[in-house]
Amino acid sequence: MKALVLNCTLKPSPQPSNTGALATEVIKELEKHGAKVKLIRIADHNVITGTKSDMGEGDAWPAILEELLDSDILIIATPTWMGTLSSMAMKVMERINGLYPARDRYGRPVTYNKVAGFVVTGEEDGARHVVAELAHGLMDVGFTIAPQSYTYWNNGPGPGKKYLESEFRKGWSIEVAKLVAGNVIAVAKALKKTPIPAPK
Amino acid sequence: MKALVLNCTLKPSPQPSNTGALATEVIKELEKHGAKVKLIRIADHNVITGTKSDMGEGDAWPAILEELLDSDILIIATPTWMGTLSSMAMKVMERINGLYPARDRYGRPVTYNKVAGFVVTGEEDGARHVVAELAHGLMDVGFTIAPQSYTYWNNGPGPGKKYLESEFRKGWSIEVAKLVAGNVIAVAKALKKTPIPAPK
Amino acid sequence: MKALVLNCTLKPSPQPSNTGALATEVIKELEKHGAKVKLIRIADHNVITGTKSDMGEGDAWPAILEELLDSDILIIATPTWMGTLSSMAMKVMERINGLYPARDRYGRPVTYNKVAGFVVTGEEDGARHVVAELAHGLMDVGFTIAPQSYTYWNNGPGPGKKYLESEFRKGWSIEVAKLVAGNVIAVAKALKKTPIPAPK
Amino acid sequence: MKALVLNCTLKPSPQPSNTGALATEVIKELEKHGAKVKLIRIADHNVITGTKSDMGEGDAWPAILEELLDSDILIIATPTWMGTLSSMAMKVMERINGLYPARDRYGRPVTYNKVAGFVVTGEEDGARHVVAELAHGLMDVGFTIAPQSYTYWNNGPGPGKKYLESEFRKGWSIEVAKLVAGNVIAVAKALKKTPIPAPK
Repeated sequence: MKALVLNCTLKPSPQPSNTGALATEVIKELEKHGAKVKLIRIADHNVITGTKSDMGEGDAWPAILEELLDSDILIIATPTWMGTLSSMAMKVMERINGLYPARDRYGRPVTYNKVAGFVVTGEEDGARHVVAELAHGLMDVGFTIAPQSYTYWNNGPGPGKKYLESEFRKGWSIEVAKLVAGNVIAVAKALKKTPIPAPK
Repeated sequence: MKALVLNCTLKPSPQPSNTGALATEVIKELEKHGAKVKLIRIADHNVITGTKSDMGEGDAWPAILEELLDSDILIIATPTWMGTLSSMAMKVMERINGLYPARDRYGRPVTYNKVAGFVVTGEEDGARHVVAELAHGLMDVGFTIAPQSYTYWNNGPGPGKKYLESEFRKGWSIEVAKLVAGNVIAVAKALKKTPIPAPK
Repeated sequence: MKALVLNCTLKPSPQPSNTGALATEVIKELEKHGAKVKLIRIADHNVITGTKSDMGEGDAWPAILEELLDSDILIIATPTWMGTLSSMAMKVMERINGLYPARDRYGRPVTYNKVAGFVVTGEEDGARHVVAELAHGLMDVGFTIAPQSYTYWNNGPGPGKKYLESEFRKGWSIEVAKLVAGNVIAVAKALKKTPIPAPK
Repeated sequence: MKALVLNCTLKPSPQPSNTGALATEVIKELEKHGAKVKLIRIADHNVITGTKSDMGEGDAWPAILEELLDSDILIIATPTWMGTLSSMAMKVMERINGLYPARDRYGRPVTYNKVAGFVVTGEEDGARHVVAELAHGLMDVGFTIAPQSYTYWNNGPGPGKKYLESEFRKGWSIEVAKLVAGNVIAVAKALKKTPIPAPK
């Protein structure tokens, strides 16, 4: 079982990433289930803005897309800004949009039988809406959304500390990370054994 | 200046309402600004489900609508369920939908020059998305949305205590209630002095 | 394979339901796949507003819930009002909220291994957001969201005709209904053969 | 009266912009009201991803921000991708996020007394949700949202033609552009005459 985790923080390395820190909890659990996990921080790569799978010279997306197509599980990890997902996560979604016409050798959308999960962090409220946005977009292009497949963290009402600066209720977020890993693995296994066929 | 506050908790009186408790903070501040405020708990009235301004026999909405049309300010207060607004708030929005064709004697939508604000409470994440939903719907039917016109409270990540059971960061929510009151009053005053004219 | 379709139109029978008309297209296709389908129009039943699985005397939800728990597939069909889901659909989601603590004899959430799909109609824009809201809520309580598991219809920009009054692009919506049926069936089969285990 | 229109299409010039085409209808109407309008296509400028008002060397945002701060009206124009706003629009929102701490000489958020409006185009459904997202974010940072302050266009259900390729219901979108211009101008005038004071 292979999983790709895309960290959509706005900040490139080596700046610390709160979203990356919570994503790591999901990764640890995926690995306990025997999955081979690859983590890519989008801000470290020249992913060109656009809606095609290859935006031409210098575009880092085709290589990331190859990893995605080679994976059974996709985890989108994103911070919350202004109550919604980051522009970096949205840029990734637009690139995934390029997959609509792509079919495998059985005539199926190339995303069929792949499973999605989510990690969201923010100072403030917004995570559940972010999950709704991402789940809708990924399901629309062909991913299956596992049950209870997201964990999140924020600071409660109003601006405040970030994930890496706080100990507030992190136990809950980390506990839920286990649930997320177990569920995306379980659905991916089910679809591996009994794949969704090509649409008639 | 008159304000109407609609508490869209799912629970009828005399059950305690967390949403009502935070709404009261906004009401106190509106009254300090000299506004006359009326609070209505929708669950205590037989508001019939539908999209017209009068759904017939026994419908409590026409009387509430009269208060709304007589007010300069509308505050929608709602709990968060499953990351979004309550069915009670949505039922209110559907009834407000009945106002689209209504015009005043100047040919303006009857909601023009009225100002909206928001109060959201929940155990969990979702408030900002709820505000987005409500702000969009009310703006669409003709309300003006004042800046920084919502306050909210939740418990941070995961399920937990309710507003009335907790002291967690309530100071922030109450402080912001002052801001909300000041801003809806200020915009309502501006529109009273210089009203939006009828569309040409 | 059993499927439950909940029509969340605001209007009780015998008024015509645009949402019901498009839902029927999905139902026909589910039946072609051999599924036994039950259609319930929520507005025809006294589903009491609240967040528990039994709200007491006269509540029609417990009987509907029994059908839901006996089904492998749940299709939520809802109109769009003010760009979002109907209060009737939201009321259903609040009642489904009552399932969070419920576990089967293996210690699993009772919604695990059930699959969701969606039907949305409206005069105007909003369907995709409605799907995001519903998919998030159902996934959160334990449903799996099949890929490309919704069909919708609207009239394009601005208010206009309803589904039953129009022929505009209905071919697309009906064609996609086939895809929806095929995909929810396929994922339900996969989970029947290889169920998601209880969380550890 | 000054207005700034930010076209958040993903495509740089000289590629045609559907969103730009509908935005032009709002611009024409703003100019008829005597407003001085500036149109900036974000994709033509090196706006660096981040949440501060100046992201350092080569960042095109500070110059755009100067125009924004010098304007009474801000129109965000964005395409719809996967049912939500473009990453370019989201990048703009993140940069506007940098304005939270900024105050004018009266101690007011620098965005107070500025008014927002919206233009959304897409092949497919999503515009109203995009408006909800943008209205919430801008209101949160201090803009006032005028009533009925957006116009949009799409092709109805499913993928299809783009704005510039189609004549479908464009009359509605263009008619509403007039309404948008009139309303943002009217609210901006009201706030110029009776400004929102500094929070107490």
